[in-house]
Amino acid sequence: MNILETKIFLDNASTTKPLGSVIESMGEAMREFYGNASSFHKLGIISEKIIRETKNYILEFLGDIDGNFYFTSGGTESNNLAIFGANNIKNLKIILSSAIEHASVYNSIKYLENSGVKTKYLIPDSNFEISEQELENLISSNTDFISIMHVNNETGMILPIEKISEIKNKKCPNAIFHVDAVQSFGKIFIDVKKLGIDLLSISAHKIHGPKGIGGLYASKKINLHPILFGGKQQNKIRPGTEPVELISGFKTAVKYASLNIQKNYEYIKKINNYAREKFSKINGIIINSPDSASPYILNISVLGIKSEILLNFLSENNIFVSSSSACTGNSKSHVLTAVNLPENRIESAIRISFSIFNSVQDINKLCEFIKKAQDNLII
Amino acid sequence: MNILETKIFLDNASTTKPLGSVIESMGEAMREFYGNASSFHKLGIISEKIIRETKNYILEFLGDIDGNFYFTSGGTESNNLAIFGANNIKNLKIILSSAIEHASVYNSIKYLENSGVKTKYLIPDSNFEISEQELENLISSNTDFISIMHVNNETGMILPIEKISEIKNKKCPNAIFHVDAVQSFGKIFIDVKKLGIDLLSISAHKIHGPKGIGGLYASKKINLHPILFGGKQQNKIRPGTEPVELISGFKTAVKYASLNIQKNYEYIKKINNYAREKFSKINGIIINSPDSASPYILNISVLGIKSEILLNFLSENNIFVSSSSACTGNSKSHVLTAVNLPENRIESAIRISFSIFNSVQDINKLCEFIKKAQDNLII
Repeated sequence: MNILETKIFLDNASTTKPLGSVIESMGEAMREFYGNASSFHKLGIISEKIIRETKNYILEFLGDIDGNFYFTSGGTESNNLAIFGANNIKNLKIILSSAIEHASVYNSIKYLENSGVKTKYLIPDSNFEISEQELENLISSNTDFISIMHVNNETGMILPIEKISEIKNKKCPNAIFHVDAVQSFGKIFIDVKKLGIDLLSISAHKIHGPKGIGGLYASKKINLHPILFGGKQQNKIRPGTEPVELISGFKTAVKYASLNIQKNYEYIKKINNYAREKFSKINGIIINSPDSASPYILNISVLGIKSEILLNFLSENNIFVSSSSACTGNSKSHVLTAVNLPENRIESAIRISFSIFNSVQDINKLCEFIKKAQDNLII
Repeated sequence: MNILETKIFLDNASTTKPLGSVIESMGEAMREFYGNASSFHKLGIISEKIIRETKNYILEFLGDIDGNFYFTSGGTESNNLAIFGANNIKNLKIILSSAIEHASVYNSIKYLENSGVKTKYLIPDSNFEISEQELENLISSNTDFISIMHVNNETGMILPIEKISEIKNKKCPNAIFHVDAVQSFGKIFIDVKKLGIDLLSISAHKIHGPKGIGGLYASKKINLHPILFGGKQQNKIRPGTEPVELISGFKTAVKYASLNIQKNYEYIKKINNYAREKFSKINGIIINSPDSASPYILNISVLGIKSEILLNFLSENNIFVSSSSACTGNSKSHVLTAVNLPENRIESAIRISFSIFNSVQDINKLCEFIKKAQDNLII
């Protein structure tokens, strides 16, 4: 591909383009601050300071400066650390999760299920709603771990974290509450203390930071156990040389996201609204994401064209969208299946996901090529 | 610290300064090739290609193009994946390791020990030698896992991998043979097939690549099981979005190391020899590393000055060395303790570790300041 061609990148829930300032801060760290943070000389101390400052910045942004934060290699490891780390504290017995979690949550929970842990799953209806009654039914006094995503990665559905927290506090106040916030961190404001969240997973590359770095927030009352063993880094909860250049890039990305969270949200909301309006005027397009979804993600079905076919056609024209979650490859979406969408909508679903680098012109171009696809690919 | 001051970085076994070309390739990846390798559009395919090419390049360099290679977040995760991944294949019963392994190996094995696995440890003598008789004694027909480092991180001692492999093939050919090559990869040539190595851990930041990326080689006959659960990336053995910018930087670093391995070795050997000669002329310095050690690492004791005191004094003068392994913080070296060095040598030991960015002038400066320290700090 000629890298100078104009790209329309509408796959921002998979990953985002790093900010220029992120790339610069990483370059600076690699040129100047390359010491191992565990070394006691000056270069080590500088690295340690960058790491500590980033950690504190993130904790402050999340609303709990007294909490703990562990850097991980990304969202997948954060979710594994939350689930297995909690299981290592007390052997979990009854877990509540949802049927639409990311693979790194549901496959970790499946693993525990195979070793005897009981599980219950919230299943949204086809309007992407979960009734309060269902929450009341599924959360019981012996629930000891709850793992729920904040924003669903395929549809943008916002899960009822606040409601769940409320019922949890009433019925099983000692249960550990984990939230996978990979798709919401830096986009929708989160106050972990107000929401009673014990563990929160985040990732840098979904907010224009580098890939290969993420983290897990843990409230002070959670005595998390490690899942990797080694040196004394990060209080032995997550050993391994801290990647100071990634942490530096992460910090730059979090700073940008935190300082612009409201402005960016409104900008993305405008693009999303524009897209919804344009799509509503094209025959054969059904919008799958609920109106209440995060504006950063918009799932639609273009009836009569299989997702992969449309994705390839758009890709050939330098418009990049996703068929479902990037992480599950080309298998059928477990999210759209779980909420019981009709088969013809599932197999023709594409996910459009936005970032601050998009504009309404991108939507115009996308609509133009969807129409071309409808003219040429529907027999 | 004024970043323009001249730094003498002699802590290269902790981490190394990234090559300019590494920083450039990472910047390029972040600016242009930021797609998620699991995405099916063109930007995803480019990322997938960079990852595949890097993997193949490393496998070829290791001498087994048909093997598997899994990118991890670094040496610690690679060692954990090797040990727990192997334990997940068949529940291990008898493990052979050494008393001088990196914390990520010995703490992982300790964890298995607590769950009932039997362990035996090779202990080098105070000349850093392991007799063939001891190997014969400790490797038995029911040994099912061997984890031995190639080059010791504190002393440079080269462990008898070839001999161990020979005895293993004779006595327990089905045992899984893991080698932690974090300190040797790209510095001393390794042919995994000739050496009969099943699993090999490597890291990028020890060879002028970025921090936060490493990998585990696995021979084709090893059906490794994952320790993290999630999406379909890396054949489900190591899920999570592959950090394409880190992999790109890793590739650049491996290319440089592989193409210059012999030349660099000779250059480092020359510096090491020069240092040994200079040290031999300073009263009160004892060289702890054996003559046969990797030239990249030189452990010495400056009798009468505690390691931390000397390290701080040198750091104040912009000379950066290590008191022991960076990963274990400031506790007493388990390596020097295991080989039974006298207490006064252990508590005054410092590790000097070299890279291609060092010169003999650095050694002159180091000696000058060690003498100053002896004049001023020994009461």
